[in-house]
Amino acid sequence: MIQFATRMNNLKGSAIRELLALANKPEILSFAGGMPAPELFPVEKMKAATDAVLDEMGEVALQYTSTDGWPRLREQIAERMGKKNGIKTTAANILMTSGSQQGLDYSARVFVDPGDVIIIESPSYLGALNAFKACEPNFIAIPTDENGMIMEELEKVLATTERVKMIYVIPDFQNPSGRTWPLERRKQFMEIINKYEIPVIEDNPYGELRFEGEDMPALKSMDTKGLVVFLGTFSKILAPGYRLGWVCAEGEILKKYNFMAQAAALQASTEAQLIVSKFIDMFDLDEHVAAIKANYAKRRDVMIETMEKEFPPEAKFTHPNGGLFTWVELPEYINTNEMAKQCLERHVAYVPGDGFFPDAGHNNCIRLNYSKLNEDQIREGMTILGQVIKENIKK
Amino acid sequence: MIQFATRMNNLKGSAIRELLALANKPEILSFAGGMPAPELFPVEKMKAATDAVLDEMGEVALQYTSTDGWPRLREQIAERMGKKNGIKTTAANILMTSGSQQGLDYSARVFVDPGDVIIIESPSYLGALNAFKACEPNFIAIPTDENGMIMEELEKVLATTERVKMIYVIPDFQNPSGRTWPLERRKQFMEIINKYEIPVIEDNPYGELRFEGEDMPALKSMDTKGLVVFLGTFSKILAPGYRLGWVCAEGEILKKYNFMAQAAALQASTEAQLIVSKFIDMFDLDEHVAAIKANYAKRRDVMIETMEKEFPPEAKFTHPNGGLFTWVELPEYINTNEMAKQCLERHVAYVPGDGFFPDAGHNNCIRLNYSKLNEDQIREGMTILGQVIKENIKK
Repeated sequence: MIQFATRMNNLKGSAIRELLALANKPEILSFAGGMPAPELFPVEKMKAATDAVLDEMGEVALQYTSTDGWPRLREQIAERMGKKNGIKTTAANILMTSGSQQGLDYSARVFVDPGDVIIIESPSYLGALNAFKACEPNFIAIPTDENGMIMEELEKVLATTERVKMIYVIPDFQNPSGRTWPLERRKQFMEIINKYEIPVIEDNPYGELRFEGEDMPALKSMDTKGLVVFLGTFSKILAPGYRLGWVCAEGEILKKYNFMAQAAALQASTEAQLIVSKFIDMFDLDEHVAAIKANYAKRRDVMIETMEKEFPPEAKFTHPNGGLFTWVELPEYINTNEMAKQCLERHVAYVPGDGFFPDAGHNNCIRLNYSKLNEDQIREGMTILGQVIKENIKK
Repeated sequence: MIQFATRMNNLKGSAIRELLALANKPEILSFAGGMPAPELFPVEKMKAATDAVLDEMGEVALQYTSTDGWPRLREQIAERMGKKNGIKTTAANILMTSGSQQGLDYSARVFVDPGDVIIIESPSYLGALNAFKACEPNFIAIPTDENGMIMEELEKVLATTERVKMIYVIPDFQNPSGRTWPLERRKQFMEIINKYEIPVIEDNPYGELRFEGEDMPALKSMDTKGLVVFLGTFSKILAPGYRLGWVCAEGEILKKYNFMAQAAALQASTEAQLIVSKFIDMFDLDEHVAAIKANYAKRRDVMIETMEKEFPPEAKFTHPNGGLFTWVELPEYINTNEMAKQCLERHVAYVPGDGFFPDAGHNNCIRLNYSKLNEDQIREGMTILGQVIKENIKK
């Protein structure tokens, strides 16, 4: 009789992944994943960058590299973080990871023993909860409003809770809610953090995808005590297929992440690092991000417009100013897991909301993605979804 | 005061990685890493495969894929495992990983709680010990002879030890010793395993790199009870820069690895999987492996010949029939960590042996790699190393 580790009791496979398997058929309009629009990938430019890498330094690209990662790429990332997130940093503070998911996994493993507390937003990213669960934590979910985490609630919890080992937040275009913390709340948060000196994981995959309004400074840019670990990724601004993300952190914390990376993976792909670095040197990543943003903004518009027209008044949803997702709250008597089956029969898929909460209940929510499908598909899908929701509304 | 998780006390960074950082200067003859010969990488062919992938399915290559991995590549791997390792399997039993190191990390996390026992060979692969340490196990190292693990010793331990959760072995051209288990010992091992029903991690990065003698069937090919988890990798037969390895396992075990992968990384690189798959379809991987083997065999010959000529009789070393490493045992009064500094002064680097044992002591051994440097460099390096060893021998 084979015995598995206790942590495996916590890992059941993610609802997103299982649904994606079903939703993968071409006839399904899937709003379930968090995938970029594939037709916007700069395939020809990536090919030129790849050819240049293989011509100029093929032997380096195919060989092992250091755990922290390719120096030139880390320089480029540090420079970009200065411009985009207001973070003054250097290559020495950056560790490359195989996608941000690996950064999430390392985070819990660096800080969390079984039974320790991780503070999250309510709701929070399903994939992060799943990564953290492998470390057998207790979650405390802080209530949120339209401006993100409610700081008074955070402070209450910190003042009365032992063994809080890290706080995980997505302040920009949060997954799943699409909400962004305004500046005042960021300042409040940093004041509280500096008082309690708890490490913060700031997950920022969507920060560059702002459609309107002013860019917000990252929490990391206000971090005077080296408490914030910033997770970045090329998945949403370039392409997820390379699995390239990074950790930006200070001193002893960064060192522990490096030790964790040595043990868990040795390094991120040399080839991918050299190619993405070359792409940034050869082409204009800002121009590419601008094109993505213009496209996603239109898709967001079509989604919200169609929802306003086709959804019943009982359905409440967020109006994101960027990122990939909107979040729908239905009357509490509607179970969106059950409704997902009705939708799949009509060839529409979404992620039921309960996976974004660490505790049971919360069965009346839906996460919708607007980056993957085109405007016609979004219109059609939201019309069908609106119809199904109406059928579930009690008269 | 930031508190780190208890597991981080076990992770100090690997001796190999730290030494590699020092040994990375061009003037150093480094026998420290386990790197393939870069001049043998099939750069032009990889370029052709990459161009074909980006031309034919660029949007797929740059997008997310499933956690288990690209179906065509898993089919190709299953077929290859049948031919090379005598393992009858299918794509459904294969999970792609970001290099074998990730497979090692997943293995401990799937099976091992803090305080559980992992059985290993003595010595065993430093990188595996480092990965496993993150799960806070107790190691029991089984003595080995020139034919690998001594089965009577293994049985003694299994009969008297509680909480043994997994057994980690490298039966082919072991890292660090270069030794291979003969058929009889493999059969003995499987009999014992089937009696105690303990999961086995069979790490096989070097099996295809046999210079002489007959291929041995993998333990996995004799596995009638689904107890063996086989770890494969493209790092040594193609290129480590893509970070592509795989796990081959059965039923509930495979399912747990998949859950672990979802939590820890989502997936291995789509781009790398498609490129390697295309390479195998377009070109002859066997031909490439044959070329590597011919080259490494010559380098092994030069290394062993020079050692026989230049090392004092007090130095004992293995004569590997394949793989990348030979293992040197010096008189017990020689500390190879201290001697490494003397060698570095003369521009020669190796890995001191103590990192390959879970307990202290074992300071008189050295692991030497012969795949990275050319024949002249090997001759020069071994002559210098022989000189330094002689200087350390007590008259």
